[in-house]
Amino acid sequence: MKKLLTSIFLFSFCLSMSAQNSQKALVDYVDPFIGTTNFGTTNPGAITPNGLMSVVPFNVMGSSENTYDKDARWWSTPYEYTNNFFTGYSHVNLSGVGCPELGSLLLMPTTGELNVDYTQYGSKYKDEVATPGYYSNFLTKYNIKTEVTATPRTGLARFTFPKGQGNVLLNLGEGLTNESGAMVRRVNNQEYEGMKLLGTFCYNSQAVFPIYFVMRISKVPAETGYWKKQRPMTAEAEWDADQGKNKLYTKYGKEIAGDDIGVYFSFDTEENEQVEVQMGVSFVSIENARLNLETEQKDNHFDKIYQDARNLWEKNLARITVEGGTEDQRKIFYTSLYHLLIHPNILQDVNGEYPAMESDKILTTKGNRYTVFSLWDTYRNVHQLLTLVYPERQMEMVQTMLDMYREHGWLPKWELYGRETLTMEGDPSIPVIVDSWMKGLRDFDVDLAYEAMYKSATLPGNENLMRPDNDDYLSLGYVPLREKYDNSVSHALEYYIADYSLSKFAQALGKKEDAKMFYSRSLNYKHYYSKEFGTFRPKLPDGTFYTPFNPLQGADFEPNPGFHEGNSWNYTFYVPHDVYGLAKLMDGKTKFINKLQMVFDKGYYDPANEPDIAYPYLFSYFKGEEWRTSNEVHRLLKKYYTTKPDGIPGNDDTGTLSTWAIFNMIGFYPDCPGLPEYTLVSPVFDKVTIELSPKWYKENELIIEVNRNSPEDIYIDKVTLGGKQIKKYRITHDELVHGGHLIFDLKSTK
Amino acid sequence: MKKLLTSIFLFSFCLSMSAQNSQKALVDYVDPFIGTTNFGTTNPGAITPNGLMSVVPFNVMGSSENTYDKDARWWSTPYEYTNNFFTGYSHVNLSGVGCPELGSLLLMPTTGELNVDYTQYGSKYKDEVATPGYYSNFLTKYNIKTEVTATPRTGLARFTFPKGQGNVLLNLGEGLTNESGAMVRRVNNQEYEGMKLLGTFCYNSQAVFPIYFVMRISKVPAETGYWKKQRPMTAEAEWDADQGKNKLYTKYGKEIAGDDIGVYFSFDTEENEQVEVQMGVSFVSIENARLNLETEQKDNHFDKIYQDARNLWEKNLARITVEGGTEDQRKIFYTSLYHLLIHPNILQDVNGEYPAMESDKILTTKGNRYTVFSLWDTYRNVHQLLTLVYPERQMEMVQTMLDMYREHGWLPKWELYGRETLTMEGDPSIPVIVDSWMKGLRDFDVDLAYEAMYKSATLPGNENLMRPDNDDYLSLGYVPLREKYDNSVSHALEYYIADYSLSKFAQALGKKEDAKMFYSRSLNYKHYYSKEFGTFRPKLPDGTFYTPFNPLQGADFEPNPGFHEGNSWNYTFYVPHDVYGLAKLMDGKTKFINKLQMVFDKGYYDPANEPDIAYPYLFSYFKGEEWRTSNEVHRLLKKYYTTKPDGIPGNDDTGTLSTWAIFNMIGFYPDCPGLPEYTLVSPVFDKVTIELSPKWYKENELIIEVNRNSPEDIYIDKVTLGGKQIKKYRITHDELVHGGHLIFDLKSTK
Repeated sequence: MKKLLTSIFLFSFCLSMSAQNSQKALVDYVDPFIGTTNFGTTNPGAITPNGLMSVVPFNVMGSSENTYDKDARWWSTPYEYTNNFFTGYSHVNLSGVGCPELGSLLLMPTTGELNVDYTQYGSKYKDEVATPGYYSNFLTKYNIKTEVTATPRTGLARFTFPKGQGNVLLNLGEGLTNESGAMVRRVNNQEYEGMKLLGTFCYNSQAVFPIYFVMRISKVPAETGYWKKQRPMTAEAEWDADQGKNKLYTKYGKEIAGDDIGVYFSFDTEENEQVEVQMGVSFVSIENARLNLETEQKDNHFDKIYQDARNLWEKNLARITVEGGTEDQRKIFYTSLYHLLIHPNILQDVNGEYPAMESDKILTTKGNRYTVFSLWDTYRNVHQLLTLVYPERQMEMVQTMLDMYREHGWLPKWELYGRETLTMEGDPSIPVIVDSWMKGLRDFDVDLAYEAMYKSATLPGNENLMRPDNDDYLSLGYVPLREKYDNSVSHALEYYIADYSLSKFAQALGKKEDAKMFYSRSLNYKHYYSKEFGTFRPKLPDGTFYTPFNPLQGADFEPNPGFHEGNSWNYTFYVPHDVYGLAKLMDGKTKFINKLQMVFDKGYYDPANEPDIAYPYLFSYFKGEEWRTSNEVHRLLKKYYTTKPDGIPGNDDTGTLSTWAIFNMIGFYPDCPGLPEYTLVSPVFDKVTIELSPKWYKENELIIEVNRNSPEDIYIDKVTLGGKQIKKYRITHDELVHGGHLIFDLKSTK
Repeated sequence: MKKLLTSIFLFSFCLSMSAQNSQKALVDYVDPFIGTTNFGTTNPGAITPNGLMSVVPFNVMGSSENTYDKDARWWSTPYEYTNNFFTGYSHVNLSGVGCPELGSLLLMPTTGELNVDYTQYGSKYKDEVATPGYYSNFLTKYNIKTEVTATPRTGLARFTFPKGQGNVLLNLGEGLTNESGAMVRRVNNQEYEGMKLLGTFCYNSQAVFPIYFVMRISKVPAETGYWKKQRPMTAEAEWDADQGKNKLYTKYGKEIAGDDIGVYFSFDTEENEQVEVQMGVSFVSIENARLNLETEQKDNHFDKIYQDARNLWEKNLARITVEGGTEDQRKIFYTSLYHLLIHPNILQDVNGEYPAMESDKILTTKGNRYTVFSLWDTYRNVHQLLTLVYPERQMEMVQTMLDMYREHGWLPKWELYGRETLTMEGDPSIPVIVDSWMKGLRDFDVDLAYEAMYKSATLPGNENLMRPDNDDYLSLGYVPLREKYDNSVSHALEYYIADYSLSKFAQALGKKEDAKMFYSRSLNYKHYYSKEFGTFRPKLPDGTFYTPFNPLQGADFEPNPGFHEGNSWNYTFYVPHDVYGLAKLMDGKTKFINKLQMVFDKGYYDPANEPDIAYPYLFSYFKGEEWRTSNEVHRLLKKYYTTKPDGIPGNDDTGTLSTWAIFNMIGFYPDCPGLPEYTLVSPVFDKVTIELSPKWYKENELIIEVNRNSPEDIYIDKVTLGGKQIKKYRITHDELVHGGHLIFDLKSTK
């Protein structure tokens, strides 16, 4: 222990030295508490960039004092800032997601007599600290300081105990996931290995998968064993003292299995004695979980592991440096960049093995195999930002998506640890892959990609996993409402944008007929336009509109015929591939602009969900109206993106809302997925330098400079690229990365 | 399938030929239904002699139409003759036991739409057939004929389906055991492997152990998957359609774990199509379960496996041949012998591996490792009969017991699959091992045996697993009543008999002082004798008797201060090592005889439990009163032992009640465990030939002949051994096995 304390001292010393001698580290701009309330569903846990492992303080169950408690209400995230009842650290979690999943392998330290009931062993806490790769708190019930850090595939906890009896619990029964069932086996008194079932994401009952783990504790326990909640008995209730309760298995040391099981360790500790608990995981096997643990943690202790994680984050964040702006804006920016780099995350073990898509097979990859593709969200901006700043990762994500097609026969829709959860709608892989290809990320089998896209775009509905309503879509040109809450309009709008991307792809590949066909399809959105309401409106199979209709119904996730997670206003302007066509349908530019402005003015715009997040850029398609884009963007950024825990307006959606902020803060936004173009918007910073990857781009960096007199100068006066003024408020990807410095001259008036 | 049907035909043909050409096979005298009601707790399942595996029709759950249903009442056996709701075949079971345990891995065939709820998929049945190594019935709900057979470590089921959809279910959630929790993994579409937790026998919550299995189905299923009972939800109940229900996992093919899980197979069958399901088990590992299956079943099909089991039983039963007696008496006799050869059963796998006693270690044995030692029962007669007729098995059982001491530090009390369940009381290993040694079974480390016995006889109570009340026992000479239902008198009476055995052992080993000490202890039973009641009576720590006292309290398992599973009358004469001393205490022979006779006449004698089962032989210690022994024995045999399902008076107690019948039917009974002597009793047969093992005994066979004029001649007129008349109605083991023919001349009057 002496050794450990020494190393802590040295570590703190080095950190403070480094702070004195250099600029503030970028990681220190990251505040992982941003987004941890207000349904942002991010968390302050320890994680590495795109790491499989996250170690998150789990505070969402077991207490009526929690504001949001999963035992009392629907809940989708392992951590809520306003809660106060900590029941352990969950290992492997989702960030910014709207359905409960993962968040299991709950590791909890306690003191005093062993108690394995989480409603009783949970503790309040204080002194929360979170920074990339590290989280800490102090459990007031037990006077235990807890700290966690992570490597890509393993977690490490350090518990500083008071003098007396200490306990460490691993709860395998509870967690955020709705799946239950686990198996755990004692390897020796300091090591256990096992498996827990996860899945049923967003109530897809077949999307089930196992997590394997190996845990090791640094201290030889005086006692270790299992617990298991006993099924309640009826006939034999009077004989079995444990029935309906948690039974302790004090003598049994082979494997145990069940719905509600756990492992305990008890020991005596000296004052301030530190106990470390390592957790290696794998989605392939227990053996791989051990290999991951032994490879990534070797003999390293807490401080080294954390320093490595911190360094890795610093290096990742440094791909973009910003100058100017407020301290808060820099915090918002780097925290958003941090959120961008959480999902998709790697899936493969250190030996390259991973579970094949929708299969029991184990395959091996040479590069990174990614997972957690929340594509209905991320196709809009996340993959575009990755393409620009982290192209090596985006390239591997595209390769992963094509491997999924090879393994499963389908590109992903909402992939989660090898399962297609089929959450949300559309065919979002198409714009993601087309967008990358258009921007020069072409290190993949383009024929296979086209084959995969063509398949989902053309296969009949009953064989079509991506587009189950393809028959209607192809024959009618739209998806009719056949069941009250079938989200039919939302489905079709996604198919239109996907088909537009596909038409561009076909065109580029010389497939003229296909290009024509898919382009033609993409314009069928017009079917939904109701002159009467001036909005999209669900349509029945016979071509008549669905009645009754109220374009405001469906706000705040209220169920709504035809539209998914939104109302008609949130969807009506979502035709990014034919903005002028839509304007024409709405009787011209003026009416279009007025109506769009009304959406913002009347508060019909929902900043918390994806369908309308590209609305602000539509103004810039029209000469003289471009100021409205910056006007709305700056207003929205200011209102909804802050450094507070509620500083993200809704589910971060695996980084999508954070990425919205990033693009807007640096001056451009990819408003039409699949199209390698950006709308320009006035940046919040004075200078932005983006490190470009020489493998993909000719330049080493992209520099954006801003000239303004005050922060209130939010309107674009002039934009020059490589010294040449840009006429339109629009720029292609190629221009952006190869056109030289991008300089904004801003002004204070429209 | 054609091949299978041909082989069935040939097999039936051979069987009928053999029936025509020879005497009735001994196995055909065995009626496995005897003891399957009236709380006999035997079962008609398929098993091999001392086999680990039994495959038993499980009909004790899920229906209010069952007379005895474990879902509605306390219940301890997988099968009840009077029940009617079959929910599958349980693999590995206990026979004749009074606490629920084992009886899991429930294998069920059904037809029609898949249904995995046992309360719904259970079926009534008809046409039950049971014979050693085979059981069959016909499921009337499904028109499926089911048949099962077994090898020592594997089971095999054959289901004959009607045309249509057929299903096979493996339910890992239910069973007789009170433990729950299982893990199962798909190996391929026709093979699954897994583990289920068993234990908590007689509510010893720490006596827990795993069973590992590999199951294979002969038919390629159209579909196969899992089910799992979902935990009921509260907060999310409205979102998850499966909550609280059995969910089918149709796409997930890796391992699953939980409290209530199962595996299903579905397929289409032709009329009369047969599907076989193999089940290999091990208490060591899944790998060993597979090895056991592959070794013992090889490529053999049902008929061959069954024929082997039948042949093995025939060979085992043939160690004793009887002539004369009624057909019913031969049925009772061979069925009893069949029950004798069920427990203890082998534990080790085909490679010799077994789980060490109270340890997580796996060890390897060269011979047989036995398990299921219900010693409070079996020390009274089972091991004595094994010693005489199956000495190679008894020798290995003693070696097993000493290995348990090596592994765990204690000889067994009630050992179950490597766990000491501490059920019932006393130190019963001592008389078992001493008895064997006294009879010449000495192929074990005698010093180690003595060390083990000395340890439990002398260690202070707080360190003494066998004799937790040893402090009182040693200081006071008796165990005082300290808690109302502490069974104190029963404890002490067991220690007295054990100490008597130990004194004999010490004496034989030349340890004179020890012999004296233990002998002296064994006479301390006198503390309990109440002159007032003429019975044993619980005593308090201060030496006064416990009040209130009623020697009749405690009949029929009513809780009773001082006595376990019985009343004072059931225990008062249980001093088999000092019958004359007890008689003296009771004021002499006449009063002793009259009181003992009164116990029988007034119905105080309980034929259904062990404490008083040696009472009838006490008469024979007194000249002129010997007729009473045969008188009572013949009366009890006639009244309580029949060929009907209720033909055993109570729990068979792993063969103890059956063995009582066997000894009595062939003419002698080992009334004092540890003492190599028998009381003679008039046999029911005319001639009995016992094959003796040349390794242990000089003679090849022991022949008992009986001369009588009618079956009513039940009184002994004269007994000659090797032509020489025996004066006493008592014979030593050495005389019995080496003294030549034992000839009884019987008469009709006292």
